[in-house]
Amino acid sequence: MRKATSNVLHSVTQRHWPLKIRTAKYSTPPLSKDTYKIKRGNFASLTDKDINVFEGIVGKTRMLTDVSDVEAYNVDWLHSVRGSSQCVLKPKTTEEVSAILKHCNERRLAVCPQGGNTGLAGGSNPVFDEVVISTSLMNKIISFDSLSGVLTCQAGCVLEQLESYLLEQGFLMPLDLGAKGSCQIGGNVSTNAGGLRLVRYGSLHGTVLGIEAVLANGEVINCLNKMKKDNTGYHLKHLFIGSEGTLGLVTQVAIHCPVSPKSLNVAFLGLDSYEKVLEALKSSKKDLGEILSSCELMDRTSIQAVEENLKLRVPIKDCPFYMLIETSGSNSDHDEEKLSQFLENALEKNIIVDGIQASEPSRIKQLFEVRERMAEALLLDGFLYTYDVSLKPQDFYSIVPTTREHLKNVPGVMRVTGFGHFGDGNIHLNITSKEYSKEIMNNIEPFVYEWTSKFGGSVSAEHGIGLKKTGAVHFCKPPQAIQLMHQIKNVMDPNGIMNPYKVLPAINSA
Amino acid sequence: MRKATSNVLHSVTQRHWPLKIRTAKYSTPPLSKDTYKIKRGNFASLTDKDINVFEGIVGKTRMLTDVSDVEAYNVDWLHSVRGSSQCVLKPKTTEEVSAILKHCNERRLAVCPQGGNTGLAGGSNPVFDEVVISTSLMNKIISFDSLSGVLTCQAGCVLEQLESYLLEQGFLMPLDLGAKGSCQIGGNVSTNAGGLRLVRYGSLHGTVLGIEAVLANGEVINCLNKMKKDNTGYHLKHLFIGSEGTLGLVTQVAIHCPVSPKSLNVAFLGLDSYEKVLEALKSSKKDLGEILSSCELMDRTSIQAVEENLKLRVPIKDCPFYMLIETSGSNSDHDEEKLSQFLENALEKNIIVDGIQASEPSRIKQLFEVRERMAEALLLDGFLYTYDVSLKPQDFYSIVPTTREHLKNVPGVMRVTGFGHFGDGNIHLNITSKEYSKEIMNNIEPFVYEWTSKFGGSVSAEHGIGLKKTGAVHFCKPPQAIQLMHQIKNVMDPNGIMNPYKVLPAINSA
Repeated sequence: MRKATSNVLHSVTQRHWPLKIRTAKYSTPPLSKDTYKIKRGNFASLTDKDINVFEGIVGKTRMLTDVSDVEAYNVDWLHSVRGSSQCVLKPKTTEEVSAILKHCNERRLAVCPQGGNTGLAGGSNPVFDEVVISTSLMNKIISFDSLSGVLTCQAGCVLEQLESYLLEQGFLMPLDLGAKGSCQIGGNVSTNAGGLRLVRYGSLHGTVLGIEAVLANGEVINCLNKMKKDNTGYHLKHLFIGSEGTLGLVTQVAIHCPVSPKSLNVAFLGLDSYEKVLEALKSSKKDLGEILSSCELMDRTSIQAVEENLKLRVPIKDCPFYMLIETSGSNSDHDEEKLSQFLENALEKNIIVDGIQASEPSRIKQLFEVRERMAEALLLDGFLYTYDVSLKPQDFYSIVPTTREHLKNVPGVMRVTGFGHFGDGNIHLNITSKEYSKEIMNNIEPFVYEWTSKFGGSVSAEHGIGLKKTGAVHFCKPPQAIQLMHQIKNVMDPNGIMNPYKVLPAINSA
Repeated sequence: MRKATSNVLHSVTQRHWPLKIRTAKYSTPPLSKDTYKIKRGNFASLTDKDINVFEGIVGKTRMLTDVSDVEAYNVDWLHSVRGSSQCVLKPKTTEEVSAILKHCNERRLAVCPQGGNTGLAGGSNPVFDEVVISTSLMNKIISFDSLSGVLTCQAGCVLEQLESYLLEQGFLMPLDLGAKGSCQIGGNVSTNAGGLRLVRYGSLHGTVLGIEAVLANGEVINCLNKMKKDNTGYHLKHLFIGSEGTLGLVTQVAIHCPVSPKSLNVAFLGLDSYEKVLEALKSSKKDLGEILSSCELMDRTSIQAVEENLKLRVPIKDCPFYMLIETSGSNSDHDEEKLSQFLENALEKNIIVDGIQASEPSRIKQLFEVRERMAEALLLDGFLYTYDVSLKPQDFYSIVPTTREHLKNVPGVMRVTGFGHFGDGNIHLNITSKEYSKEIMNNIEPFVYEWTSKFGGSVSAEHGIGLKKTGAVHFCKPPQAIQLMHQIKNVMDPNGIMNPYKVLPAINSA
């Protein structure tokens, strides 16, 4: 096992990839209403009177109505969806959000909440002329209790900003995403973001202790509990986690943060078959146990995209599979001993064929860069069809060769690749082509969803349903559950103004 | 630091304390409808025709109608509530549950779901003549996947049965309760039980991956997802976690189980002030980090109850406070080194004054017995007023001396004690008297709730609301949240047949 050296990989300058992408070569995407054949809901249209009301709430400086200013909110960072909102509002307080929503509800004006605009399912961009409510100025940290580890903040705090704040106090955010330089905690919560640390710290349903959200009618639901245990009635906060702003707008979050580990180690491994990958998973859970904090899988095709499109070099020899294993713990000697033992066993039993180990922060960052910039690398092929599914470890990778085989005679397909959060059973299946092809798309969907559903997987592991996947919900949820979702939506947002066209499948698809 | 020896504590014979208590000296409690002044809802009454329908569903052998047979289901193990159900049904399958509920809903017959009848808030006993649906025969383990760690089982599986099953395969249930010999996983989920391992493995909202539940109208909501990540629409399962059977009856559960630790260590510590207790918490989080799996606090008065009423002896010298710290991990050398280091530091800095350490399973069990049998010991005083609140670590213990002071002139008060899951901010405040006293009760409530609410705590940390605490919900939830709870109840159970009189406060108390 070699130690990483500084010349192995290009250095990481920044990880704000969504912003970086925005400046790239992409042209204006078609309007989502055309791409997804959506009919506008029965909502009112914005008038000067509404603009005056909004100005009274947020003032002139926190309202955008110029087409050029609004454009960045109409389009997602992938340049895959586009709406035609004419108005972006930037409230700073819960009271302002409440006043905005109250007015919109009374007027039947549809709204689209937006955080860092880093979503992958088109959930945070308008489809028609929805009023965009951006949480970007709701970026105050309200409190942090170093005894309980509970952080309370406004929804617009950027994940990386929170992370830096906590690190200074010896704590850590329980989630980490590639988009952390831009994504906001309110958006993370609303999409139930997963990310790289879920294997260790669990999902937001476990770590988020309290939520304050504003309902469509402007009512504030204050469930901003800061206790790890609170069994006083229905656990309403979970309705807002993962409902992508369709049931209410999350304004504040209380989240439990773990103590920052004193030691961090990473191993980048090469394996020559999927059977070996499964063996490595099993022994990592056994040998690393409580210190395993990330277990990522990448296939050769994904790595090739990073090498070719980003000119990054991978520090070990070519293999069909690569794993990135991170440990974090409270004692560096113990952690290194556990990791070394795991790696020695794995080499001895021929589970891995090559590997590199790092404990210095800059080296760790470099090793993770390959994994974190994979979506960006693939996007540089031209067009990216990206699928985010969960599958049992046994079935996890099969979806890649199966899809590759299925697409082998479809013209224009460049790469079919798979990588993802293996420790959580979450794989990102990616297909690229030079430009968008309807034929390729028709060959991928519903094929990929049907296959996933057949194996008991989830058709959206962590990216959510947003606009793009509403037609796929029924692959994972029975009609009774979809009906219940609609009933809850009707109770909480009877006029349907909150982020319409998103998440909920049409009743007849149920 | 001494090592535990075998003569320190009496040996543990069994931990099925709810069953044990049932055979004790308690007489028949008054009817709950009288104790809590409840008016019967507008439900139908059971007829011979209904009995015939039920017999058609579950057969004669799985239906109890004899007063003496039904009695055990009408009364809780604390002998604090009593209903007058005339009929207990014991379905074995989801289909049977569905058929029962469909009939009850059409007939407007109220039902009361019951698991192991180990609840502490009267949530699983009828109040009037509700039909009891016992899940005790729904006790099949459906599947376990040793690669993903996901266990799927019926709601009636007893927690200890699941634990034994998993231990054989090298895994662990992510929750552990004193009542594990009797409590059922469906009841655990329905009350969002916390217990001793929450500090390590998090709450059921994080570990439960999927739920199958039957709605009041008999419709089966199959959200029995087995993936750690699934973002396909609203996260409905959380509506059933902690709603105590008022929104539906949980029939199956899929839960993520951690790999069983290879090493387990326990330290039983004595401390001479609450300031030292806070210091011990801080250093345990820092020094033990990822291996800390339990952090319990007990005060001298609680320990005295165990010594006097159960004749158990505590292995260290008398102190105002005691802590029980458990570590579990994948490497015994590492764990012991971490724990020793923590203890040495704590002794050196005078954080602890005495302590005992154990790693042998039988010794660990003995040390835990003191903590686990505390409720039982207090109950032997005669009558137990028990409160389960969450508070910030800074405020955690203040509720005990504050309550003691408040009750100092109230006749009949025997003990005012506090113990609990310190690592999670969850304290059990207990007051005992020889027999029930209205005067004592009136002096405790709402005093305790008001105080907790003032300090931002939760008036029910893990025991739930059940029947006993419906009047206390508004101390933790604003009127808007309570209204939303009612709206959701109305959507999911429009006839209100599911576990009536429980959880939801009257609208006017909102």
